[in-house]
Amino acid sequence: MQIGVVGLGRMGGNIARRLMRAGHRAFVFDSNAKARAALAQEGATQADSLAELVRALDKPRAVWVMLPAGEITEETVQRLGELLEADDTIIDGGNTFYKDDIRRAKALKEKGVLYVDCGTSGGVWGLERGYCMMIGGPENAVERLDPFFAALAPGVGEIARTPGRDSADTRAERGYIHAGPAGAGHFVKMVHNGVEYGLMQAYAEGFDILRTKDSSELPEDERFALNIPDIAEVWRRGSVISSWLLDLSAAALAKDPELQGFSGFVEDSGEGRWTIEAAIEQATPAEVLSSALYARFRSRRGHGFGDRLLSAMRFGFGGHVEKKEADASSRDAAE
Amino acid sequence: MQIGVVGLGRMGGNIARRLMRAGHRAFVFDSNAKARAALAQEGATQADSLAELVRALDKPRAVWVMLPAGEITEETVQRLGELLEADDTIIDGGNTFYKDDIRRAKALKEKGVLYVDCGTSGGVWGLERGYCMMIGGPENAVERLDPFFAALAPGVGEIARTPGRDSADTRAERGYIHAGPAGAGHFVKMVHNGVEYGLMQAYAEGFDILRTKDSSELPEDERFALNIPDIAEVWRRGSVISSWLLDLSAAALAKDPELQGFSGFVEDSGEGRWTIEAAIEQATPAEVLSSALYARFRSRRGHGFGDRLLSAMRFGFGGHVEKKEADASSRDAAE
Amino acid sequence: MQIGVVGLGRMGGNIARRLMRAGHRAFVFDSNAKARAALAQEGATQADSLAELVRALDKPRAVWVMLPAGEITEETVQRLGELLEADDTIIDGGNTFYKDDIRRAKALKEKGVLYVDCGTSGGVWGLERGYCMMIGGPENAVERLDPFFAALAPGVGEIARTPGRDSADTRAERGYIHAGPAGAGHFVKMVHNGVEYGLMQAYAEGFDILRTKDSSELPEDERFALNIPDIAEVWRRGSVISSWLLDLSAAALAKDPELQGFSGFVEDSGEGRWTIEAAIEQATPAEVLSSALYARFRSRRGHGFGDRLLSAMRFGFGGHVEKKEADASSRDAAE
Amino acid sequence: MQIGVVGLGRMGGNIARRLMRAGHRAFVFDSNAKARAALAQEGATQADSLAELVRALDKPRAVWVMLPAGEITEETVQRLGELLEADDTIIDGGNTFYKDDIRRAKALKEKGVLYVDCGTSGGVWGLERGYCMMIGGPENAVERLDPFFAALAPGVGEIARTPGRDSADTRAERGYIHAGPAGAGHFVKMVHNGVEYGLMQAYAEGFDILRTKDSSELPEDERFALNIPDIAEVWRRGSVISSWLLDLSAAALAKDPELQGFSGFVEDSGEGRWTIEAAIEQATPAEVLSSALYARFRSRRGHGFGDRLLSAMRFGFGGHVEKKEADASSRDAAE
Repeated sequence: MQIGVVGLGRMGGNIARRLMRAGHRAFVFDSNAKARAALAQEGATQADSLAELVRALDKPRAVWVMLPAGEITEETVQRLGELLEADDTIIDGGNTFYKDDIRRAKALKEKGVLYVDCGTSGGVWGLERGYCMMIGGPENAVERLDPFFAALAPGVGEIARTPGRDSADTRAERGYIHAGPAGAGHFVKMVHNGVEYGLMQAYAEGFDILRTKDSSELPEDERFALNIPDIAEVWRRGSVISSWLLDLSAAALAKDPELQGFSGFVEDSGEGRWTIEAAIEQATPAEVLSSALYARFRSRRGHGFGDRLLSAMRFGFGGHVEKKEADASSRDAAE
Repeated sequence: MQIGVVGLGRMGGNIARRLMRAGHRAFVFDSNAKARAALAQEGATQADSLAELVRALDKPRAVWVMLPAGEITEETVQRLGELLEADDTIIDGGNTFYKDDIRRAKALKEKGVLYVDCGTSGGVWGLERGYCMMIGGPENAVERLDPFFAALAPGVGEIARTPGRDSADTRAERGYIHAGPAGAGHFVKMVHNGVEYGLMQAYAEGFDILRTKDSSELPEDERFALNIPDIAEVWRRGSVISSWLLDLSAAALAKDPELQGFSGFVEDSGEGRWTIEAAIEQATPAEVLSSALYARFRSRRGHGFGDRLLSAMRFGFGGHVEKKEADASSRDAAE
Repeated sequence: MQIGVVGLGRMGGNIARRLMRAGHRAFVFDSNAKARAALAQEGATQADSLAELVRALDKPRAVWVMLPAGEITEETVQRLGELLEADDTIIDGGNTFYKDDIRRAKALKEKGVLYVDCGTSGGVWGLERGYCMMIGGPENAVERLDPFFAALAPGVGEIARTPGRDSADTRAERGYIHAGPAGAGHFVKMVHNGVEYGLMQAYAEGFDILRTKDSSELPEDERFALNIPDIAEVWRRGSVISSWLLDLSAAALAKDPELQGFSGFVEDSGEGRWTIEAAIEQATPAEVLSSALYARFRSRRGHGFGDRLLSAMRFGFGGHVEKKEADASSRDAAE
Repeated sequence: MQIGVVGLGRMGGNIARRLMRAGHRAFVFDSNAKARAALAQEGATQADSLAELVRALDKPRAVWVMLPAGEITEETVQRLGELLEADDTIIDGGNTFYKDDIRRAKALKEKGVLYVDCGTSGGVWGLERGYCMMIGGPENAVERLDPFFAALAPGVGEIARTPGRDSADTRAERGYIHAGPAGAGHFVKMVHNGVEYGLMQAYAEGFDILRTKDSSELPEDERFALNIPDIAEVWRRGSVISSWLLDLSAAALAKDPELQGFSGFVEDSGEGRWTIEAAIEQATPAEVLSSALYARFRSRRGHGFGDRLLSAMRFGFGGHVEKKEADASSRDAAE
């Protein structure tokens, strides 16, 4: 089948590749001509503009947009909405805010253009491992696109089947679901990323506690100089907390036990933030997911105004004079 | 090789079995005669008392204690300390507080008895999957016991090897590590369980947000009736958050999508608590692990004194009268 | 001076009263005729409709809207926008979301109507203590309304002056500030309420810890049966944590030491939620304010889906069967 | 009455002074001869050693120890235990861990020496404002010392009386309570400090959100350049969140709006840590108090190992390369 792919970065390029490997025909566009040319060399048909891409595809068309969430995706979807015709489909495979999906689907429906939001997990490993996809949109569009989703998904593979699922929708165990109407796919993906933050922070805190166990603040007979890479490795094997994120941690630690190659200024995408906003709208407590987000905020800050206010109050009631930065950074060194 | 196993519950019984399967000879004791007899039928040699167990073993003896953490383990270790001789070894495979290990090792050392603490993860699945073990104690004891640890561990099996570990200690990738001196094994296991709480709570919050997305508090066009079992399943496949705990969640949800068979009064073992205490002693922030522990505390409480004080203050400054329990429980029903 | 007051509930009625006490003339409207009549008996001029209220006032008019945040306030402001003329002013004294203020101010500006948002703290005590006001809007409108703000504010009174403020804007120490353009007043009030949640929860947790110090889970020689009302009282006197919220707590505890008259199902207004959303938009960590909000969410829930999922996982990996509700509620009783 | 005071630092010196102002006779000792001499000039009788101090006092003696918690207090109490006789009393007014009080009281009881623990709040302001005291120990000792406690406490003063307390113990409203047996005083003081951390952090987060409201990350029409010192001031007046800590914050901000004079490396005393440990022992959730403690830990750290592990995982699954420190610190500057 034919598909248009717009956006040929780390994710979009591999999506086009994996679709072609499965025998689909990819028409590709990216504002970067080199990126287009690279895919063309691998068998894709490149277009010089969105308009050309749309002209090149047979009807009913399907165009997969794989761009950074925000303005660029919004503009591209709007432009495609103008170019496409009734019964064509736009798939937004990026990390769009689900309320934007709801709005877009409503607007495009007036013209008969179908809109599908597809939360896509898998990162740089997706080309080989396949992508986990959470899809929202109208039933008929999602069904028509099924060959693409099936090709992108990991398939059952070597992952053990969950007992008791025999009669259930088999798409889930092949790696994709139709979660509901427009927005539902990105909503599930958003929560997925929220959970991801929580899991990552749980490991980060645990390894931090293991590492500070050697701190000079402790009585000598309670200090341990633990081998963190070995601990990460052994937890992968037979333990309750084995996971893919732990596999990645173990690999990073095996290579660089102190992780000196990483800055520790941890970015956050919108999805972690939106997850908390959703929790709050729904009055659902989410301490762990919130704390995980805030840990990232803190990782990017110096000693902030709030901290100085604490120092000021302590001076106010107790005359406490806090250590100067110089002393404190030596404490950091000993961490 | 010969080994004594004391405590034949869910964990201890399977440890004896897995050792026997590997060709070791198990001498077993449990205060419950039926439990002893059951193991004897499977090939173990049963003893009627600790004293008899000790007499039956060749020197240097090794006795694995696998009892609930606390008083019963403490008493058993002390009694064994009296019965055993220099160069014999006690292995505590339970969930003992690591400071108790340090104390015991010091006391037993006076008599020459060796003490090894072995944090053991694997639960009811360990007999088949093998156990992940984190070991503390003197080098010579840990080396002498290596055949037991190797037999209990999962071995490399089908789990992919971590790139870049070729020259490192191979025990970690076979599923056990010698973490350090007495206490180090249980310390690492303690943090392991602390991380476990954090991971579990991250999933719990995420699935809770997915479920309350159908709440009547939301505007109708933002509600989704999501299929939670399918979401758990799809996340196992190609997603960043796949893990063994997610496998278990997916299995539970496939069987009982509303989880009505579970009370939601979540117990906590000592290890989650000790992890927080360790973090605090070491001045290491651990918001996620703490919140995960507190979520369990809250799961076991009714509407507490603290909540009532909030209501009282709100009445005090704003004349707010909170809803009565009856109304609120109907809200719960609609949750 | 003349002022219109719309909304004569607990807050609006007292605002009209306090303004009249200061010699201002109040024209009042409420959809409830009885509420209008009550104020008329105290000297206000009642109007039967918004239109009549507007007709009755001299130009340039000032109308203070004091209604529950949300639809009713929105409709009233829109209707007033139609009825009022250029150079008239609408003051929204309720708990409106500050982004709505920005939108409204922009819309009303086209017609020349001025819009002022006034976050108002003081609750049922404001009539006597005065109101703390945080004001947003154009300079000229805020200056023209100064006599009203001065009358509603507490004034310097007996509260000690802050050293070093002599040259600063004296409005702050009289109890009101012009925080910035439209929305700034409600933004500051919103954060005020966010802080309020945090303070309340800090006290709630502290008193909860004091109370559970008598729990049967503790060794007997570490249990204390503490007198909570006396502790609340003594903390008011010379301690670092004295505050008005503590005064209210002490009063509630003196009257009802177990607070049995309160349900503990703690409502939350929008402002606590919006504070967290603002923190997230600004990438500012806010663990304490978030946890305080979530504690309220939890106070209104039974044992939720998330809790049951934790139980399900524990059963999955460890065969743990959690206590049934019946057992657990007896634990609640002993709390 | 006569009293011995050991430790003449910021707290101990003022306690001796306030007692002398009330007509008591103070015998003082400090290892620093200058500190002794200073108090002697103000009317105290100085001793050159603990032994001399004990000899100088009439029986039954009372010795108030006011030293930093930890080793120095422990040694002093033990030495005094040797020097004192049956029916003499030691008062520990410092921030001792309450379990140490229980242990000491038990040990001293064998010799008949009475032990009283007195949690003392008031900081550098206590000399003028009086001290808030939370007292543990045997009834007879606490009663005998009442004239000292009454003199140190603020008394009813100008603080409004709590309605409904007329029949209750009047000590609470004069500023001190007998909380229970040995340890109870320091336990209540410990929780007091735990609450203090929570309150401080609630304000710190709130002011931080106000300040980052001017951040360049926000759309221009949603940014506000707020006057933080004025906001702190206005909240003192008629608002729900007025408190003594807010008074101190307002004073600090009036003097130094950016708080540039403070490092923001926030120390923590043992009491905040012990409060969390107590909460955990008692299975009482305490998210706010824990987060407040962790915020202090974080304030003293650089970008830690845990943060780097997050970066490493993000690189692992998504190829994300985090910003380098240099870039990030410029972000800090713009904060």
